[in-house]
Amino acid sequence: MAFLNDHYLKLRAGYLFPEIARRVNSFCETHPEAAGRVIRCGIGDVTEPLPAACIEALHAAVDDMGRRETFHGYGPEQGYEFLRHTIGQHDYRDRGLDVADDEVFVSDGSKCDCGNILDIFGHENRIAVMDPVYPVYVDTNVMAGHTGPANEIGAFEGLLYLPCTAANGFVPAIPKEKADIIYLCYPNNPTGATATREQLAAWVEYARVHGSILLYDAAYEAYISDPAIPRSIYEIPGARECAIEFRSFSKNGGFTGLRCAFTVVPKALMALALNGERRPLHPLWQRRMSTKFNGVSYPVQKAAEAIYSADGKAQVAALIAHYMGNARILRDACAKLGLEVHGGVNAPYIWVGTPPGIGSWDMFDLMLEEASIVVTPGAGFGSSGEGFFRISAFNSRANAEEAARRIEAMNF
Amino acid sequence: MAFLNDHYLKLRAGYLFPEIARRVNSFCETHPEAAGRVIRCGIGDVTEPLPAACIEALHAAVDDMGRRETFHGYGPEQGYEFLRHTIGQHDYRDRGLDVADDEVFVSDGSKCDCGNILDIFGHENRIAVMDPVYPVYVDTNVMAGHTGPANEIGAFEGLLYLPCTAANGFVPAIPKEKADIIYLCYPNNPTGATATREQLAAWVEYARVHGSILLYDAAYEAYISDPAIPRSIYEIPGARECAIEFRSFSKNGGFTGLRCAFTVVPKALMALALNGERRPLHPLWQRRMSTKFNGVSYPVQKAAEAIYSADGKAQVAALIAHYMGNARILRDACAKLGLEVHGGVNAPYIWVGTPPGIGSWDMFDLMLEEASIVVTPGAGFGSSGEGFFRISAFNSRANAEEAARRIEAMNF
Repeated sequence: MAFLNDHYLKLRAGYLFPEIARRVNSFCETHPEAAGRVIRCGIGDVTEPLPAACIEALHAAVDDMGRRETFHGYGPEQGYEFLRHTIGQHDYRDRGLDVADDEVFVSDGSKCDCGNILDIFGHENRIAVMDPVYPVYVDTNVMAGHTGPANEIGAFEGLLYLPCTAANGFVPAIPKEKADIIYLCYPNNPTGATATREQLAAWVEYARVHGSILLYDAAYEAYISDPAIPRSIYEIPGARECAIEFRSFSKNGGFTGLRCAFTVVPKALMALALNGERRPLHPLWQRRMSTKFNGVSYPVQKAAEAIYSADGKAQVAALIAHYMGNARILRDACAKLGLEVHGGVNAPYIWVGTPPGIGSWDMFDLMLEEASIVVTPGAGFGSSGEGFFRISAFNSRANAEEAARRIEAMNF
Repeated sequence: MAFLNDHYLKLRAGYLFPEIARRVNSFCETHPEAAGRVIRCGIGDVTEPLPAACIEALHAAVDDMGRRETFHGYGPEQGYEFLRHTIGQHDYRDRGLDVADDEVFVSDGSKCDCGNILDIFGHENRIAVMDPVYPVYVDTNVMAGHTGPANEIGAFEGLLYLPCTAANGFVPAIPKEKADIIYLCYPNNPTGATATREQLAAWVEYARVHGSILLYDAAYEAYISDPAIPRSIYEIPGARECAIEFRSFSKNGGFTGLRCAFTVVPKALMALALNGERRPLHPLWQRRMSTKFNGVSYPVQKAAEAIYSADGKAQVAALIAHYMGNARILRDACAKLGLEVHGGVNAPYIWVGTPPGIGSWDMFDLMLEEASIVVTPGAGFGSSGEGFFRISAFNSRANAEEAARRIEAMNF
């Protein structure tokens, strides 16, 4: 008889966002008068339309698909040369970073890549994640059989959790233990923290000493305005030998519903075969993508290319300014209320301390009941998230302003 | 130090299509006068533009993405309700087949789904594949560690190969051995064969007796014109308890460059947990898609929906008629030459026997050198493919006619 993958049975039934949806629905049913005024600052989904340059590129590419002479069938699984080159040039080489076009792998999402990347690694690796953490890093490792069961607070046996607290600026201290694969995410989801050059250099040094690999999730890179903060792990010398970088068009161009991202796998990046040989990972990822993926939709790749045009860049800058304007408004409101406020300066997330004695799920309920605002409870991202909640700046200006007014009017 | 996935090192370096591309390039370099007249009947990629109904739906959806009020961000990972419902209704319930909307999982490709489906199965399963076989089934099992190394003819230790020959009509005999997971593909790539109701019923019976699961790849379903041939495995009573079905918009709507497909996982389908309990696979695939995928591009899902409109159906029928017209022309030409011809009637592939004493790679070279036609050597799909080559009907009519003329003029 066919066996299922038993590791899936270790996953917790109640994932964070479904539980939030359940509580919001229940609130709306019991408070029908308030249902219409609920403002959602929970999930990190963009709200503004696509940049005009992308819309124009999409229409043109759709027309291409309607004519025999310009029709596009199967494209290269790793992405069209026009897009890989544009990314390599604008995001890396124009900034003095050594990334070749064929080290850029275009995909349909960073979430997919963060999960799929495990395909090319062995099961022998010790995995480290930040705490709080984007749940996909953890769940995909559970699914792959890299952990034991979860304990009562939801931490999985065998994973090395790296606490990120206000005391360390939400950048984990270098551990004394050895980890083979370490997930780092900056600007961070959920804390909105960024990492300095020195902090990232310490991680690159750790990885080089131990032969570890950093999985660097830079999906929110576009929100960095401080020129001192690295936008890519490859700004750190030596990172080409120890890091894979994930980038996305979801949060700069607003492609959450269009689906395009990319992952950089440097050719210098090596890992160990069971016979003790060091071998490059680039051909493995190339093979993985050729075999289990069939490329991103042609019109979507044309839209991604348009993000790098002069018009596209200006339009993306306006989008970022819009969301970061929201972040400032929401951050200020929480600060005025006397809450401890982190993030929201070089990231679209504000990480807010709950008032003394109020847990993060209680705070979630309180925000919903008193202000009709949906936030994300910090504990949903891991035990070090307890005592915090996340506010997303992805909203209309009117909603952000109204949410700010309601927050300022709250009482504890 | 980080370990790589050693199983990748078992994969053969020279994949079929890159080797073909290498030989074609080499031919064009040494025969510059013939380079311009090469006709590619190798890879199974569509050549005709998208149906007008799809183009129209794409433009409208792109406009939606450009307006705040109609913008779509993250969609449901399993596909929009509008598409899942349309598929469930038209492809299944209208044909009297019991498939619910939430058993339909929309994805970006059947190739991806055929590979990713292994995520929800344990490593304890014995895997059976047809021979000749679509290489993705084999390679993804190698990557997952379900096989030993390959032998000298490229067969992987531990896989159960089911020979498909002219003698059994390219439908494998029910094996005496037990297999837990069996890949079946009808209409077949590469042989162009179809399976009768009785043949499929025998496989469903086998699966039910052994608790096996059939992975039924019906990507070429639209090419079936004979009403007696099942278009879905769910036409066979009992299949809901033992089969997953893969379908694609690549070959009916010509979405190879647009990317949309779907997989049906019935809620009645169970597999064994290690503790001996039988559990449904549906929640595992639901969780897999929620965690490692983020849905198909919204405009692409709207285009897929348009395939089911009255205009869309008529336009798809015209596309199929076009390609099947090519198939008839090419099939007739091979028959006139005196070659043994299979397929090409309810499938866009023609499976042609090589003349006595000529191996399939030799025949590949001969077709290229004598007729400037690129085919696919049968041996590339597995050892039972030796002695055959595949001609794809995906081409313009002019190319198909010219190829037919050249084939008829060949001499052995």
